[in-house]
Amino acid sequence: MLNFDFYNPTHIAFGSGKISELDQLIPVTARVLILSGGSSAKQTGTLDEVHQALTGRYIEEFSGIEPNPTYETLMQAVEQVKNNQIDFLLAVGGGSVIDGTKFVAAAVFTKTDPWDILLTTGRDVSKALPYGTVLTLPATGSEMNAGSVITRQATHDKLYFKSTLVFPQFSILDPTKITTLPPRQLANGIVDAYTHIMEQYLTYPANALVQDRFAEGLLQTLIEIGPKLLENPDNYELQANLMWTATLALNGLIGAGVPQDWATHMIGHEITALHGLDHAQTLAIILPTMLDIRREQKHAKLLQYAERVWQINSGSEKERIDTAINNTRNLFESLGVKTRLSDYDIDASAIPALLDHLELHGMVNLGEYGDVTIELSRVVLEASI
Amino acid sequence: MLNFDFYNPTHIAFGSGKISELDQLIPVTARVLILSGGSSAKQTGTLDEVHQALTGRYIEEFSGIEPNPTYETLMQAVEQVKNNQIDFLLAVGGGSVIDGTKFVAAAVFTKTDPWDILLTTGRDVSKALPYGTVLTLPATGSEMNAGSVITRQATHDKLYFKSTLVFPQFSILDPTKITTLPPRQLANGIVDAYTHIMEQYLTYPANALVQDRFAEGLLQTLIEIGPKLLENPDNYELQANLMWTATLALNGLIGAGVPQDWATHMIGHEITALHGLDHAQTLAIILPTMLDIRREQKHAKLLQYAERVWQINSGSEKERIDTAINNTRNLFESLGVKTRLSDYDIDASAIPALLDHLELHGMVNLGEYGDVTIELSRVVLEASI
Repeated sequence: MLNFDFYNPTHIAFGSGKISELDQLIPVTARVLILSGGSSAKQTGTLDEVHQALTGRYIEEFSGIEPNPTYETLMQAVEQVKNNQIDFLLAVGGGSVIDGTKFVAAAVFTKTDPWDILLTTGRDVSKALPYGTVLTLPATGSEMNAGSVITRQATHDKLYFKSTLVFPQFSILDPTKITTLPPRQLANGIVDAYTHIMEQYLTYPANALVQDRFAEGLLQTLIEIGPKLLENPDNYELQANLMWTATLALNGLIGAGVPQDWATHMIGHEITALHGLDHAQTLAIILPTMLDIRREQKHAKLLQYAERVWQINSGSEKERIDTAINNTRNLFESLGVKTRLSDYDIDASAIPALLDHLELHGMVNLGEYGDVTIELSRVVLEASI
Repeated sequence: MLNFDFYNPTHIAFGSGKISELDQLIPVTARVLILSGGSSAKQTGTLDEVHQALTGRYIEEFSGIEPNPTYETLMQAVEQVKNNQIDFLLAVGGGSVIDGTKFVAAAVFTKTDPWDILLTTGRDVSKALPYGTVLTLPATGSEMNAGSVITRQATHDKLYFKSTLVFPQFSILDPTKITTLPPRQLANGIVDAYTHIMEQYLTYPANALVQDRFAEGLLQTLIEIGPKLLENPDNYELQANLMWTATLALNGLIGAGVPQDWATHMIGHEITALHGLDHAQTLAIILPTMLDIRREQKHAKLLQYAERVWQINSGSEKERIDTAINNTRNLFESLGVKTRLSDYDIDASAIPALLDHLELHGMVNLGEYGDVTIELSRVVLEASI
């Protein structure tokens, strides 16, 4: 096992009806800004529920945070915070709204260009506003971690930062919020969580027995409930298990003490930035190919994945690995998430620009061994068409 | 899944050599009291390592905290804290030292009789000194939770309290500390962790898929590494996996959103208080009998335990459950921890006094259904002889 530090102070309030406890979670004297995305939080009644729980409080709103939240939009929220002496943020939405809120929380206090937060991956963040979240879409795990991905529209840059100062103080996870999600968002959430787990699990053995067992348990749970939930999106037990699984997939726990990959995510970010695909769509395309191309480096863990997660116990090693990778691809397809670039009319002509952007962002030594060079990313992208 | 709140702000610093980071974890101006147990922290060099990491700091020491830490001893530490304006505690030891430090942290600020902290199970704790821990014995999970068990020597009361104010700020988990443990303590630690997991897992199904998978993963890990570690107590990978498993066994994670039992622990506490057995020895005696006697109430989970943890897939349901319970007992015996009261020369004549103490402490409706009455505890104790 590798040495590690684990720290995660976010208070999780989990279950149906938990939004009513907001009143006890936010200081009485706080000047609150509620941040949200499009119109869904309003249409589904979640925003009303939040307002009701906070009756009598000082509240302002900022809506319109996009999927893949943009610097341009978020800087408007920063202005609103500064102009109106806001001292507590409340994100109501999915990973994009929460990621955006993290940026706002930190950007309010920057003395230099706030984009530097991304350019320094959060190293220089020294202060942030306190905030909480009301999660409406299980997927990214942002509700219980200190990472955030922000896009700069003007330059098509999609970059990452993290800082222990931007952990949510609390996150309310009410599984019934899943009921109103469009199937595409629900399926995306499942693929996103699945890939988060794989990026921390499917590397090389590190004698981290518990982390492996936990990752495998999360994967098995997604395989068990994912397709069922798409058929029964209002089944509370399925909703609850997806919501908690997606949170645990990226709260630092399964990644503690083990090597991590993240090459799939980094390549995926460039596809979203240049072609506008949903984040999870890019992961469903890249992950199966990435596993296939790097099957030698990932040999031992692929066999373990085949056996423990997919119960594949017979056949040659190559056959077992083939089946496990195919099962992964088929799982995504069964959720309605396509797994080829060509499904989105992207062909080989798009690859040079994607590689240029990877290089521009320093993504030249990706993966658990740092051996996913631009040349290897080209191979993966070509095999993903 | 049941509604739940999960909150655990303890910073874990895990790995060989992590004690050297103490300097960054304790405020420079702190007036530190190091609390420890018997002589082992000194003899093994751990205390020296701690002092070296804190060279130049204001440090006092308080040693002599017993296994099953006593109110009487701890109140001497409270005096020392008050007399010398100590403002940071550092527990160096196992669960007893850490439990004791939690009590000291809270008792320093009580205005009434400090024993009230136990009598109110921590409800009235409103302030506590900050503290960290250096763990030397993986077992209780106290290094990453907010619970503590304290014994009052004068009255043979062994009681529990918890408060979110007594989470450790940090815990240093250096697996190499296991090397110097006596086999009995190491075996006890494994049994203790195993039983913690069982008390949160082996109840009734609650559609908590991930919590079940996590608990099963922890149990499987202990089964895999426990006996090996007793044979190779200086194997770092085995040490590391035990240390992290024992911590995760009782940090709130696998118990979130599920029913919990704890009847085995409550009966065990009375055996320790009246007969002086090690905590884990009492668990190894009571747990297998408890599972056997309550096999109807625990039927579904016992079958799941048999299949997933012990890979028992054939035989009648009764046979599978029998085998799983026998395997549990045999695991404890294989670690050298006896599983019968008679192994400690305790016979039926001891039972009335144990039941009296259970009643005295209000332990009259134990277990996940609250149906472990004094009468049922009698049945369990009689079957444990």
